[in-house]
Amino acid sequence: MPSLVFWFDPASTYSYPAAMRLDAAAAAAGVETVWRPFLLGPIFREQGMATSPFNLFPARGRYMWRDLKRLCDDLAIPFVVPDAATIAGFPRNSLLAARAAIVALREPWGHDFVRAVYRAEFADWRDIADPGVIGELIAGAGGNAAAVLAAAGADATKAELRANTERAAALGLFGAPSFTIGDELFWGNDRLEQALAHARRVAA
Amino acid sequence: MPSLVFWFDPASTYSYPAAMRLDAAAAAAGVETVWRPFLLGPIFREQGMATSPFNLFPARGRYMWRDLKRLCDDLAIPFVVPDAATIAGFPRNSLLAARAAIVALREPWGHDFVRAVYRAEFADWRDIADPGVIGELIAGAGGNAAAVLAAAGADATKAELRANTERAAALGLFGAPSFTIGDELFWGNDRLEQALAHARRVAA
Repeated sequence: MPSLVFWFDPASTYSYPAAMRLDAAAAAAGVETVWRPFLLGPIFREQGMATSPFNLFPARGRYMWRDLKRLCDDLAIPFVVPDAATIAGFPRNSLLAARAAIVALREPWGHDFVRAVYRAEFADWRDIADPGVIGELIAGAGGNAAAVLAAAGADATKAELRANTERAAALGLFGAPSFTIGDELFWGNDRLEQALAHARRVAA
Repeated sequence: MPSLVFWFDPASTYSYPAAMRLDAAAAAAGVETVWRPFLLGPIFREQGMATSPFNLFPARGRYMWRDLKRLCDDLAIPFVVPDAATIAGFPRNSLLAARAAIVALREPWGHDFVRAVYRAEFADWRDIADPGVIGELIAGAGGNAAAVLAAAGADATKAELRANTERAAALGLFGAPSFTIGDELFWGNDRLEQALAHARRVAA
């Protein structure tokens, strides 16, 4: 069966619409997906960027909020353009959410949890670095909050997230969402359809 | 009639597919277009970037060539991935081509000239900073090379290009191609369809 890897950082804005529409798009295309959390921070730092390019280049940041709002409206995905004070806290620290996602994605409710994280972050502007918020989202998706939070803090989970990030860098990833089929890289929510088509071609 | 402004820098890679498909897409959508050359260099410098982000962030640059190749292949637009020596000269100095475009766009063969510049640059890897190359492309599009090159060097043309670039910065442009309808900004070849739809909605 054709397959692709979906690379996402819970703090990444454009990963939100990608996560929301991936399951339906992949099912329609007959493509299997592997959801793989990683962290953009170390990848940005390796390129000499101390924070998100949306902060370093304010014109690009201002455009991103408008573009994402149009995109989410077109897809009927709830999204609220943040006020200036909220933008000042962008991007959120996504370490805990990424570790929790690694654990959650072993369970049948893993995708639901990831989608809930993005919705909480960009529609409700809750702080995904807060264990209380993450615990609530785990429970809402159908998991045991205490057990998943404990597993999220385990050394093996931390190592898995580090390995994901190193693999992402080795594959040439520089942003999220990204999609890979073998070594072939597709960057951005806009490239999901092209990535699905490529996955089908490769498997044919 | 619905209308949009197409902002392009002759050195911009993703402006190539946009320029190649714009006339047909706009005609199909019933939208009038105004083609407006500007320079990205001053806008990048204002954001603290001494050169193209594709050079400053090599992973993004490497991806861009692969992505553009896939994109042009899908659109059946000739494109040749440059070798390392050619990439070292990227981006081309686009000052002369932008000034010549300002003059050419007053003529019925203006769009043909702009498309010829991009094709020469990214399919044939010729140097668009060379007046001999630009003169040849003017003549090929149906213009008088000597007259257009002279007008391209006139103070009024230089001032018009500077004014375009200042207006682009004021509108929040940070890359090319961009499309504007009033103050509404759409960035990237990927947003052409959305920009055309917006132009129609605004005019309705």
